[in-house]
Amino acid sequence: MSKKKLRVMMLGGLCEIGKNLAVLEYGDDIIVIDCGLAFPDEDMLGIDLVIPDITYLEKNADKVRAILLTHGHEDHIGAIPYVLKSINPPIYGTRLTLGILESKLCEHKLEKSAKLITVEAGSIVRAGVFSCEFIHVNHSIADACAIAIRTPVGVVLHTGDFKLDVSPIDGGMMDVTRLGEYGNEGVLLMMCESTNVDRSGFTPSEKKVASSLEHIFLKNAERRIVIATFSSNVHRVQQIINTSVKFGRRVAITGRSMVNIVGAAVELGYMKVPPNVLIDINDINKYPHDMVTIVTTGSQGEPMSALYRMAFSDHSQVSLSSQDIVVLSSHAIPGNELLVDRIINELYKRGVNVYQNDYEVHVSGHACQEELKLMHNLVRPKFFMPIHGEYRHLMQHKELAEFMGMSSENIFVSGIGDVLELDENSCKRAGNVPSGRVLIDGYGVGDVGNIVLRDRRHLAQDGLIVVVATVDIDEKVIVSGPDIISRGFVYVREAEELMEEVRNISNEVLTKALDNGITEWTQMKNGVKDSLTKFLFQKTKRKPMILPVIMNI
Amino acid sequence: MSKKKLRVMMLGGLCEIGKNLAVLEYGDDIIVIDCGLAFPDEDMLGIDLVIPDITYLEKNADKVRAILLTHGHEDHIGAIPYVLKSINPPIYGTRLTLGILESKLCEHKLEKSAKLITVEAGSIVRAGVFSCEFIHVNHSIADACAIAIRTPVGVVLHTGDFKLDVSPIDGGMMDVTRLGEYGNEGVLLMMCESTNVDRSGFTPSEKKVASSLEHIFLKNAERRIVIATFSSNVHRVQQIINTSVKFGRRVAITGRSMVNIVGAAVELGYMKVPPNVLIDINDINKYPHDMVTIVTTGSQGEPMSALYRMAFSDHSQVSLSSQDIVVLSSHAIPGNELLVDRIINELYKRGVNVYQNDYEVHVSGHACQEELKLMHNLVRPKFFMPIHGEYRHLMQHKELAEFMGMSSENIFVSGIGDVLELDENSCKRAGNVPSGRVLIDGYGVGDVGNIVLRDRRHLAQDGLIVVVATVDIDEKVIVSGPDIISRGFVYVREAEELMEEVRNISNEVLTKALDNGITEWTQMKNGVKDSLTKFLFQKTKRKPMILPVIMNI
Repeated sequence: MSKKKLRVMMLGGLCEIGKNLAVLEYGDDIIVIDCGLAFPDEDMLGIDLVIPDITYLEKNADKVRAILLTHGHEDHIGAIPYVLKSINPPIYGTRLTLGILESKLCEHKLEKSAKLITVEAGSIVRAGVFSCEFIHVNHSIADACAIAIRTPVGVVLHTGDFKLDVSPIDGGMMDVTRLGEYGNEGVLLMMCESTNVDRSGFTPSEKKVASSLEHIFLKNAERRIVIATFSSNVHRVQQIINTSVKFGRRVAITGRSMVNIVGAAVELGYMKVPPNVLIDINDINKYPHDMVTIVTTGSQGEPMSALYRMAFSDHSQVSLSSQDIVVLSSHAIPGNELLVDRIINELYKRGVNVYQNDYEVHVSGHACQEELKLMHNLVRPKFFMPIHGEYRHLMQHKELAEFMGMSSENIFVSGIGDVLELDENSCKRAGNVPSGRVLIDGYGVGDVGNIVLRDRRHLAQDGLIVVVATVDIDEKVIVSGPDIISRGFVYVREAEELMEEVRNISNEVLTKALDNGITEWTQMKNGVKDSLTKFLFQKTKRKPMILPVIMNI
Repeated sequence: MSKKKLRVMMLGGLCEIGKNLAVLEYGDDIIVIDCGLAFPDEDMLGIDLVIPDITYLEKNADKVRAILLTHGHEDHIGAIPYVLKSINPPIYGTRLTLGILESKLCEHKLEKSAKLITVEAGSIVRAGVFSCEFIHVNHSIADACAIAIRTPVGVVLHTGDFKLDVSPIDGGMMDVTRLGEYGNEGVLLMMCESTNVDRSGFTPSEKKVASSLEHIFLKNAERRIVIATFSSNVHRVQQIINTSVKFGRRVAITGRSMVNIVGAAVELGYMKVPPNVLIDINDINKYPHDMVTIVTTGSQGEPMSALYRMAFSDHSQVSLSSQDIVVLSSHAIPGNELLVDRIINELYKRGVNVYQNDYEVHVSGHACQEELKLMHNLVRPKFFMPIHGEYRHLMQHKELAEFMGMSSENIFVSGIGDVLELDENSCKRAGNVPSGRVLIDGYGVGDVGNIVLRDRRHLAQDGLIVVVATVDIDEKVIVSGPDIISRGFVYVREAEELMEEVRNISNEVLTKALDNGITEWTQMKNGVKDSLTKFLFQKTKRKPMILPVIMNI
């Protein structure tokens, strides 16, 4: 037994943001920590979601003893419905985490087949040779945990996403004591998140937001207050409710995910709302403006979110004016800045004042440099693997660990699929397993790959031209066409002359090919494609996709 | 004469960033201030550039007496090559501004027909009834000016883009005295930029960058230093050269626009480079790393820019390693964050340390709140029109003006095309003129509109399926096909069954239509389209574009 090595790999979350998935393997036992999704890059046209390639887990399905979840964010649980189609181990998580997961599983009609097992901070889960303790941490969602895994070769500590909040809304401060106890005992490997490694200092406490909100509520005592935030940030919503109660306001909730999560959080006891405070969004006009707070989705500017619909006067219950203010209790995730700006401009056009970053109405959920140093101090691992970040974050986290006194050769900056092999005293790179991203488009999982994306990009850039002709190959004549159809290229009514030239060129090329006795379809099609591509680039400096369709009779 | 009114309108630059273009009209005289382009929004697929709709100027071409340019940035001069195709008045600008414009005109082969007239700060240009004085301001490009226009009803002051730099690199501080003299004399209308109205305080001096650079040069004495910045920021490049000289380094320039602008700036005397400092990019390997600075384009992460090619090991002269550092002396323009992040990650993968925002290696070129207040104090206009900003900026600038004591009814937040009519004592809204955006795609100006863009977006989202069949409408039979061609929808080789179903459904619909004696092409096509759309959405939750092509024989 002691000759075996512990194998550690990430199938997602390294050199990228999202789709976090860690794998620990020892002999015949595998455990998975988190199983998240990522959102598509800009150039993944039409793609809805991205999940990790789990070929390795599928091949070793009989070994997988458990999936352990650190918390309920999409990038940590979002791939589970897809993964459960090929493996189905028990899934362990805290109540809120599983509560959020459950509604996801229902959407995929998987709620019956999935094996969900609720744990709490302090719980120890045995899975094969592994014994895993959930440890309370602070984060922008309640009930978040780090996980300490006892393995035959030593303890692995996976921090999950965390921050230190010395005045949290609920659930207490991160359990630094338990983390420190593991540190004192000796930790073989720490896997620690890196999101905010480029920010100095400490992340402010969630409580900071309360005083900012109070200031805004005081200043806008006459107005209705609309606040957008991440629906999963239960403590943020709790603070909005608390402040509203303090100022004698009722609270209405809008936006599908906000309604769902607030419902679940209240039911599970994660949110405490005094009676008669929550009102139905349909009833808001029964109350004067200065007695109403509206909590909404849409803080990332998402098209068709509740806030978006309010901004564009398309929300069926909420119509905004200068009698309202909007608070964006959030920050724009990179890539969403323009979407958020668009909403802010629309709100201003309706006379709505907008409060955002400058008013300290948001704090991050991730550890900044000083908190990461705290974690390194508590855990003092033998080996360290920065996770949860782009390459630059991982490298900066490596530097931070070196600053804390770790020697460079004990720090492993890896890519997804890279395997580390550990025993009691050593940690070595040991090849890799299949990894990558699987694209999800509608119901399709993995059926959109590079070729399809390349075509979408080509079509998006300059549109397409279809050339259709029916020929009689024996008689060597065109019997119908060529007809030209274009989409996304030019406004055809104003380009009749150009389209006529396209037709003429196609006709010429085909006639010549037939005259020359060419019977190879590919050759004929390529002839049309090449001539038109050249002609159109010369004329328009554009390269539409050319699709020749030649039928024989 | 005194019965006529001054008409003021913006054809771009209001409620948007970019394509700045102001029009002043009095009787038979029109002058234009700036004539810029904008970059396409994310959803303008395939579009290269956006210019203002100048229908109004085209209709009044005989009245246009001059185009006056405040400075040489793309969003102030970039539309000129396109506009000159329909109007051709004299163009006035400072030397650097016209130097940059000239190289643009050469690319469009317009350098001979254009009438460029060089002015300098203090110059007065007479154009019809207007008399226009150029006034020196500070900005992130040299030779920038505000323009004070004497009209028959009073003075209009257009600030251009500006900041106050109390320790500028060259050219002196903004001419607050001259601005103040106009203020003392009395200004009827001020048009003032609004870019940084949401930032408190003063924008730091360009000199701030020098001390940050020195710190980085000191810390990296052994390494080669690559610095990316906006090519038009001549003073920034000058500082990089100065710092390099101080540390005994040679300077190589790379990137087309950087080479062009530095060349022009040196030639025109805007940049002072001691002999033997500039070296050819091909010669960099003749010098040890610690003796070389490379100045490059690509600070916005632009694909195929010189820095991008360095990051992706595709630059023919510069190959980066841990012996190099990269300084991003710039900030990411909203929308470019992810592009910049991508480059930073690639650089880290090559072991290159990256210095950016945190190191104060960039300062803005636009006035923050305190500088805007300074301008309002100097000019004290009767009427005020905030320009150069999204709606939220314009509204915040209105608030700032109110804070400075202006009464709300004297402040005019307008949209593009809105006309203000002024006489000595009044300013009123007076309808509007055609305005909007003209999209440029390749050589095409304005031939890509909403329909084409809608198609591109549809194609980008889910690709397309072409259904082709040849029928004999008299015999009521399909003589060839239906054939199915798809692009950007699914990877066809792995979806043969699905494509076969698509073929069968098409065949069924067409056969039935022919059997029923339907001879209307549209009806037949719509039948195919509807059936396939429904079927595919049910199967895949996607909505590819369906393009039925039915030919008769």
